[in-house]
Amino acid sequence: MDFFQVQTTQQVKEILRGFTPLGIEDVALQDALCRILAEDVVAPDALPPFDRSAMDGYALRAKDTFGAAEGSPALLEVWGEVKMGERPSIEVRDGGVVQISTGGMLPEEANAVVMVEHTQVIDERTIQVFRAVAPGENVIQRGEDLKREEKILERGHRLRPQDLGALAALGKGMVRVHRRPRVGIISSGDEVVPIDAVPHEGQIRDTNRYTLWALTLEAGGKPFHLGIAKDELKDLQGKLDEGLFQGDVLAISGGSSVGTRDLTIEAISSLAQAEVLLHGVAVSPGKPTILAKVGEKVIWGLPGHPVSAMVIFMTLVAPSLWRLGGRTDWDKPYSWSLKATTSRNIPSAQGKEDYVRVKLSENEGELMAAPIFGKSGSISTMVKGDGLIRIEMDSEGIEEGEEVEVWPF
Amino acid sequence: MDFFQVQTTQQVKEILRGFTPLGIEDVALQDALCRILAEDVVAPDALPPFDRSAMDGYALRAKDTFGAAEGSPALLEVWGEVKMGERPSIEVRDGGVVQISTGGMLPEEANAVVMVEHTQVIDERTIQVFRAVAPGENVIQRGEDLKREEKILERGHRLRPQDLGALAALGKGMVRVHRRPRVGIISSGDEVVPIDAVPHEGQIRDTNRYTLWALTLEAGGKPFHLGIAKDELKDLQGKLDEGLFQGDVLAISGGSSVGTRDLTIEAISSLAQAEVLLHGVAVSPGKPTILAKVGEKVIWGLPGHPVSAMVIFMTLVAPSLWRLGGRTDWDKPYSWSLKATTSRNIPSAQGKEDYVRVKLSENEGELMAAPIFGKSGSISTMVKGDGLIRIEMDSEGIEEGEEVEVWPF
Repeated sequence: MDFFQVQTTQQVKEILRGFTPLGIEDVALQDALCRILAEDVVAPDALPPFDRSAMDGYALRAKDTFGAAEGSPALLEVWGEVKMGERPSIEVRDGGVVQISTGGMLPEEANAVVMVEHTQVIDERTIQVFRAVAPGENVIQRGEDLKREEKILERGHRLRPQDLGALAALGKGMVRVHRRPRVGIISSGDEVVPIDAVPHEGQIRDTNRYTLWALTLEAGGKPFHLGIAKDELKDLQGKLDEGLFQGDVLAISGGSSVGTRDLTIEAISSLAQAEVLLHGVAVSPGKPTILAKVGEKVIWGLPGHPVSAMVIFMTLVAPSLWRLGGRTDWDKPYSWSLKATTSRNIPSAQGKEDYVRVKLSENEGELMAAPIFGKSGSISTMVKGDGLIRIEMDSEGIEEGEEVEVWPF
Repeated sequence: MDFFQVQTTQQVKEILRGFTPLGIEDVALQDALCRILAEDVVAPDALPPFDRSAMDGYALRAKDTFGAAEGSPALLEVWGEVKMGERPSIEVRDGGVVQISTGGMLPEEANAVVMVEHTQVIDERTIQVFRAVAPGENVIQRGEDLKREEKILERGHRLRPQDLGALAALGKGMVRVHRRPRVGIISSGDEVVPIDAVPHEGQIRDTNRYTLWALTLEAGGKPFHLGIAKDELKDLQGKLDEGLFQGDVLAISGGSSVGTRDLTIEAISSLAQAEVLLHGVAVSPGKPTILAKVGEKVIWGLPGHPVSAMVIFMTLVAPSLWRLGGRTDWDKPYSWSLKATTSRNIPSAQGKEDYVRVKLSENEGELMAAPIFGKSGSISTMVKGDGLIRIEMDSEGIEEGEEVEVWPF
């Protein structure tokens, strides 16, 4: 596979664009948070479906209050009360008002509500109104929130709390969403042992299993574990077979040895229908990354160093999960970026995108980003960090005091 | 309860400071994402526990490469290979090297690794080295990631993917975390019907149940439903009793009528041990907010309007859940804020904190925030929005072109 050129992240995203979103399923509304809509949502009816009062007070005809003021109140007759949750049985005619609570349905002919604070009860049948109201004042008009047939949400959108609220208001108890990608996680390397084992000398515990598991969850995927593969072709092939049977995506990290890296590409290539799409990215840390397809299924070969594996996951694997998960904005970064000022020089080699961990702090209202240097095997550098900055391929680095974009994690 | 003064968010946070974090429980590491640590984590051993190679190449004594260059390679003897996951059986003595893969344990006496790219195999026992390496080069020193007894994570920290990775590296298969607050959700009002009902005229579907459910999940709580309470004291009291039995926190929203609002405070006050801590906040939308305690349990009375209920949840209820959940940074905003430029004037009345929904867009690299106006009953204004801006109490508004802080949602 040496004929593969190292690709830029932009080129990798072009590859991901060719992936087909997974199928759809229907889920109950209360389980739909963070799910990706698989249909446009259009309001079947106007929302609200009737004129509602936005305040506690009296429904009336606005013109009956014209000229009313502190010194010259309007005297109006109370004809009754609007019961919550019912169509008012009383009409409002000239000179008459009907008591109403917030959310109550406006009676026919009423076109405004005067707030209770601007009235005074004279007797059971009479109130004084101290303020003129305009037509429509303190009323939520039928269709003011959503017009009938108005599109409120689009296919490919990730559902937030307010989106669930809008779906509830429209009576959508079930929501059509894309299936979540099932992501099989494999750690590889003869030196890697499960975390409940006591490592002998030369062995280390399996870190990537947990970081990749958690990153998969954050990216909307459903992780499952395939265990630790030994540096043997057969072991790796067995885990790949099992993973492809169960999952949509596999993420194999490390072993960090050359031997294993060759083994990963060898094991992938040995699968029927396997197509290696990428072998090496112009990203640091994370260069020795592999991307392959087996039919519609996707295999990522990630570096073994924990920081490298995380950076590649955040910049490339997560977008691939979003793409498969049906998100329209799958090629956007995984969070809004913050603007910060660098607190020291950060050197970088040209010819690759460099991702640097930074610690954020505030200095007189200004956000400062201090680079955290350290090897890509050092998980503690990610723990101490608040986010990543990217140094572009053609840059030789960033100088102290320059403004940078930070993607918080 | 009229003697209560409307409180500022700062005053409310002082009340929340008095709350006691919930108890602790042990969870498996892979279930610990987003959980709040209930203990400091200290490295029991150095990480890595031995000197490891950071590269594929040859372990050696640095001094044996001094003076080596393209034109004058050093000739060194290969004594064998380090097996991954094992303690090397070979010592490196003067003039000797041992082949090693990334992550392999350095043999005794070796103090550096030369990358394979800078060597040439002459025969089975001999290589040429074309570059001098310094002592420690391409080696991850024992304890370089974490020193023995170094504190890596603090009690009260919310666990991210990299934190799980660090805990894995230290062999912590179980993690001590705070219990998640169980939050009972009640919607109230005679006009509110379940979303699977067909609303009659005057009725509306239960929106808050879903927004508050989802916001509770996002804030790390465990939501459960108590249903819709009618505007009857007995019904509300029954749901409060049930909720206090099952939950740590109750969130009652609306009914938006004056009657119901009085009913909420009446129902809360009727509970033995109830202590009303707050009745009215200087926040718009969301003024008619109630906070009460019953023993160690917390009751929030939220406005019925969906936007108001969401704003109060994000600004006050979420911090109360973080406080109960043991987070150290519970009084910080719920996300990093972004700096943006307002695209038009936003008026505001003095004497209250105003939260305005904004739509974000980019204009020549500058983030622009356009206010979304609309009544607080309009859930669509939240759906169309990307975040909230806050207008401070003493401000009369924000002018077009001013810089604002946006909390994305």
